[in-house]
Amino acid sequence: MGDENAGAIVHYAENGFFIGITPSGHALAVETDSKRGVAPTPMELLLVALGSCTAVDVIGILRKKREQVTDYRVEVKGERREDYPRSYKRLQVHHVIKGHNISPQAVAQAIELSETKYCSVAATLRPTAEILSTFETIEDESGK
Amino acid sequence: MGDENAGAIVHYAENGFFIGITPSGHALAVETDSKRGVAPTPMELLLVALGSCTAVDVIGILRKKREQVTDYRVEVKGERREDYPRSYKRLQVHHVIKGHNISPQAVAQAIELSETKYCSVAATLRPTAEILSTFETIEDESGK
Repeated sequence: MGDENAGAIVHYAENGFFIGITPSGHALAVETDSKRGVAPTPMELLLVALGSCTAVDVIGILRKKREQVTDYRVEVKGERREDYPRSYKRLQVHHVIKGHNISPQAVAQAIELSETKYCSVAATLRPTAEILSTFETIEDESGK
Repeated sequence: MGDENAGAIVHYAENGFFIGITPSGHALAVETDSKRGVAPTPMELLLVALGSCTAVDVIGILRKKREQVTDYRVEVKGERREDYPRSYKRLQVHHVIKGHNISPQAVAQAIELSETKYCSVAATLRPTAEILSTFETIEDESGK
């Protein structure tokens, strides 16, 4: 996705702030002062990267299977080593799929395909981080 | 940094967009349509995470060593596998430090300490991604 061989640039912006510019040319503020906490931290970005990477696979597969998904979110929790460097040792990925008569088997298959075949972020974070996936389906009663 | 045991939430936002909310409560748009390319992609976020993680270590160590840094940036390039999953197999991290009489030895030491001891993102991405660091120092002639 994007020109992945181009580089990102991270500028020091004083006072513990960094401005990251992605290869596709999008800037984001990065926070490294945990007490202030006014922007995503580097380690938080890994959680969002993992969640969105697997989510795009899963929603794509569910739509191809003609599952009627009306809302979808992924929750990602990380557990870090106690000692430095404080890498993630475990990442819990919980998929919440809302829709009409969603097939749990279809969801399980989609997650399995993402985990084993497609998700580049998960494949990069493993094996240092063990990735554990769970899911729940919610029947959408709203008639949406 | 932040409450790293809390979870991130990634909402599907239709049309290939996701809204990531970090554990510290900051939302960012994530792009998964590479042709459109209007926000950072999941894999791009890893580059920014790595660059900012190692940068905060390096600038902190250089300031403790009383090096006179006037500007600093990190360039991060990723090389991905050809096959799925297209994980990063190599990440090149290039530090560019501008200042007055910057000691190359001090920079080399700071990078080494970040790589081996402090940088949680680098430690998470290894060993799947090999991380190669280089640096250059630039004399600041501006009198800043």
